[in-house]
Amino acid sequence: MIVESVEAGWTKAECAVAKEAFDLAYEREVLTLITTLKSRSHAVSSPEDVWNLHDFLSAKRHEIDGKFDFRYSSLVFVFAGLVKDGLLKLSELEGLDKDKLAKIAALSRM
Amino acid sequence: MIVESVEAGWTKAECAVAKEAFDLAYEREVLTLITTLKSRSHAVSSPEDVWNLHDFLSAKRHEIDGKFDFRYSSLVFVFAGLVKDGLLKLSELEGLDKDKLAKIAALSRM
Repeated sequence: MIVESVEAGWTKAECAVAKEAFDLAYEREVLTLITTLKSRSHAVSSPEDVWNLHDFLSAKRHEIDGKFDFRYSSLVFVFAGLVKDGLLKLSELEGLDKDKLAKIAALSRM
Repeated sequence: MIVESVEAGWTKAECAVAKEAFDLAYEREVLTLITTLKSRSHAVSSPEDVWNLHDFLSAKRHEIDGKFDFRYSSLVFVFAGLVKDGLLKLSELEGLDKDKLAKIAALSRM
């Protein structure tokens, strides 16, 4: 991981900021999912409801696996997506260098 | 379906008994699943819990799809499995001919 981060131009301090922000966004995403899951489960009353809930969880898992891809080479795009989806604020990425922040901000508005 | 049932040696009256018993067992299976789903969802508190619940639903769906196979050619085996699993009583299959009932009873004890 260290080697990869250095190659991709991330300092040790930036790696720490990135990891913390990434985990925070993941926690938020999963908290929302848990709330939805509890509410939908509570309302389940037919076989169709069960299978619809299963399909929903399958789709969410696939989406989350794709969205939370912690590789330094793609992390700028990942963070832009998380900001766009409201899972992170730009201010929570403070500590990254200005170039990366500017890229993330620009990409998040696309 | 009519053609298939006749070929497999099921009378119209037996088809009606079979359909009712099959639906009853399915309803029982799904009711148990719904109870488990609600209880497990209520206790979910981490990402791991969510993915474990999703895995559980995937496995259950696969199991139920395999168990509830309404084809007259295999229905004796299906009913034997449902009796064995406690989802049907032999008495709920009354109306089938004695040969089929004897086979189902024997297979359900294997």
